[in-house]
Amino acid sequence: MICVQDAIGKLLKNARRLVGVETVALSGALGRTLAEDVVSPLDVPPVDNSAMDGYALRSGDWTGPEKTFPLGQRITAGSVPEALEKGTAARIFTGAAIPAGADTVVMQEKCDASDTAVRILQPPQPGDNIRPRGQDVHEGQTALVQGGRLRAQEVGLAASLGIAELPVFKRLRVAVLSTGDELAEPGEPPAPGRIFNSNRYLMNARLSAWGFEPVDLGVAKDDFETVRNRLEQAAGLADVILTSGGVSVGEEDHVKAAVRSLGAIDLWKIAVKPGKPFAFGQVCGTPFLGLPGNPVSVLVTLLVIARPYLFACQGTANAVITASPQKALFSRQASWREDYIRVRHDGNGVEPYPNQSSGALFSTCWADGLLRQPADTPISAGDTVDYLPFSAFD
Amino acid sequence: MICVQDAIGKLLKNARRLVGVETVALSGALGRTLAEDVVSPLDVPPVDNSAMDGYALRSGDWTGPEKTFPLGQRITAGSVPEALEKGTAARIFTGAAIPAGADTVVMQEKCDASDTAVRILQPPQPGDNIRPRGQDVHEGQTALVQGGRLRAQEVGLAASLGIAELPVFKRLRVAVLSTGDELAEPGEPPAPGRIFNSNRYLMNARLSAWGFEPVDLGVAKDDFETVRNRLEQAAGLADVILTSGGVSVGEEDHVKAAVRSLGAIDLWKIAVKPGKPFAFGQVCGTPFLGLPGNPVSVLVTLLVIARPYLFACQGTANAVITASPQKALFSRQASWREDYIRVRHDGNGVEPYPNQSSGALFSTCWADGLLRQPADTPISAGDTVDYLPFSAFD
Repeated sequence: MICVQDAIGKLLKNARRLVGVETVALSGALGRTLAEDVVSPLDVPPVDNSAMDGYALRSGDWTGPEKTFPLGQRITAGSVPEALEKGTAARIFTGAAIPAGADTVVMQEKCDASDTAVRILQPPQPGDNIRPRGQDVHEGQTALVQGGRLRAQEVGLAASLGIAELPVFKRLRVAVLSTGDELAEPGEPPAPGRIFNSNRYLMNARLSAWGFEPVDLGVAKDDFETVRNRLEQAAGLADVILTSGGVSVGEEDHVKAAVRSLGAIDLWKIAVKPGKPFAFGQVCGTPFLGLPGNPVSVLVTLLVIARPYLFACQGTANAVITASPQKALFSRQASWREDYIRVRHDGNGVEPYPNQSSGALFSTCWADGLLRQPADTPISAGDTVDYLPFSAFD
Repeated sequence: MICVQDAIGKLLKNARRLVGVETVALSGALGRTLAEDVVSPLDVPPVDNSAMDGYALRSGDWTGPEKTFPLGQRITAGSVPEALEKGTAARIFTGAAIPAGADTVVMQEKCDASDTAVRILQPPQPGDNIRPRGQDVHEGQTALVQGGRLRAQEVGLAASLGIAELPVFKRLRVAVLSTGDELAEPGEPPAPGRIFNSNRYLMNARLSAWGFEPVDLGVAKDDFETVRNRLEQAAGLADVILTSGGVSVGEEDHVKAAVRSLGAIDLWKIAVKPGKPFAFGQVCGTPFLGLPGNPVSVLVTLLVIARPYLFACQGTANAVITASPQKALFSRQASWREDYIRVRHDGNGVEPYPNQSSGALFSTCWADGLLRQPADTPISAGDTVDYLPFSAFD
């Protein structure tokens, strides 16, 4: 039996980047992983510019208690100003370049202006309302770091540097295979002894949401030859193979034997609930992850255990998931396993779904996150607990 | 001046669903918004079934201190069992249907079995290791609710109900328009007086990540006729129009006049930092949101103020964003505005990015979330504050 942290650590020790690099336009960069550092080719902003609509002048020209300056040029954003004539002020708008010679901008609200002159009522301070050149990013600065997943703001930042395309790691191709003669496909009529396959759809959707490329291999009939052929096919099509079910000791299933015949398989018992059985191995050299069969176990092991490994295989930096300390509104006995309880936050604290069975997928739809209950640790109502909103795993 | 909550409330009061309904296959349902309740057509699981690999028997047949049962049928998942003969046990595997007459399953680890018989060492309890029919979802239950955004688990749940396609609201089409003669496009060479347009890319990416359909209208030259024509075009192509910049009082800009000439515009001063100027109106009947011009203000107003409105226009239930109480590792003066500080969580608490200027987009890339500092409330190091990870806005 190994603990969750050790399982993640063992997987990460075996992880290496399995994908190459491609170049994408900014419009297609969202959610992708940056393959190289981005070093800024320029200063942002490129010149000192005005943070306000107002009047640019030289602070040394002001003499109190108030002074009227004749108005020279009018500087709009995007225009290239001339140098400021001594003793004059320039009308200036937000974002417009500060003219040479000016060192301050006075907000229009603090001035008394006509078309030809502006009266300044307070002593202007050098630097006021000026955004200096390079304030946001300076030329030569590492603006974005290899391995980062590109959010909207990184796409915007790259644009602000004038960069139209970015090198990113190719999407990790993850083969998804279910096995089991009892599995029916949604849309088919229900039949005795059969259940509809949910893991296939859950896994494909979850992988897509992470920006991976799921390779949906459907369902394999549960005989050795079929499973073996399908796994061999998966190894040729994908960078990683993911299956659900059939990795418990002694289960009626051919996945283990088929993986072993094509490579190697290690069966782990992870001290986690749900999700105890887990397999790691390789099929013709392609990494193989065998998740448990119950749908809640599939979701939890995907989020908690497989996710860091899959990201590492794509060259994506593994962001630490920050738990949110929240109040438990319930009590619960200790378990010898680390327990991931499906909970919902109601403004005061977190409540569990009544049925925490690993077969009860509805619990994960009702819930907005997981509560991590450490092994051997009871929960009493009012305790501060580790709440992990599902969005934290995105 | 209005506060953030009132601004959101005013927008939501004006929101109505602007999109119709379409049907999508499960494989394309991720991130979409459910247009109707899903009522389960069946029980999940469909029959009582075994939670373990083990032996099914009738608990009343057991007499202590131990008893050996002859083994009858062997029941695998997916097969349809015969009724259990009195006094016998059946080999059974995880997920397989419980035979009529049996009322308990004994885990194989607690038995002593041969090919023809099994010795049961402890009194079996009725119901043990049996997952009852309908335990997860029962026929007629509302399993998924209209307005919910479909995550991987909802896609999986629909599959488990045998449902192959779902009615969803069409993606909200959001026109994105930037104006400003100073704006250059990424990929162009830098030129004096010009800055690269980041808002366009930031807005398009952020809208895509929410599952909306951005309608990218690029940049309009800053004259009345051009802006007016582009807005009129936007109203014909999109459900909502979003612009950045040009909505401050007295700005050198034609957006306000152009919107007014085609519909109506209200300029709001919202007591928020960054993001004070904000406009709401309509262009030929199409709702218009005018965001501020600085990129950090664009991001914050998009996340905090525009997001709930946009989701409402798509029929998507507005999930409450749960702040994570975290420790401030810094002190900060009170402001008269609600302040959204770009911070990073380091395991002990949250630290701010040094430059909190609304022009410093890099701050949002450095950060992993926002700290909400209420108006008129100073922060002292060690205080518990409202941390909003960026993922919470996804």
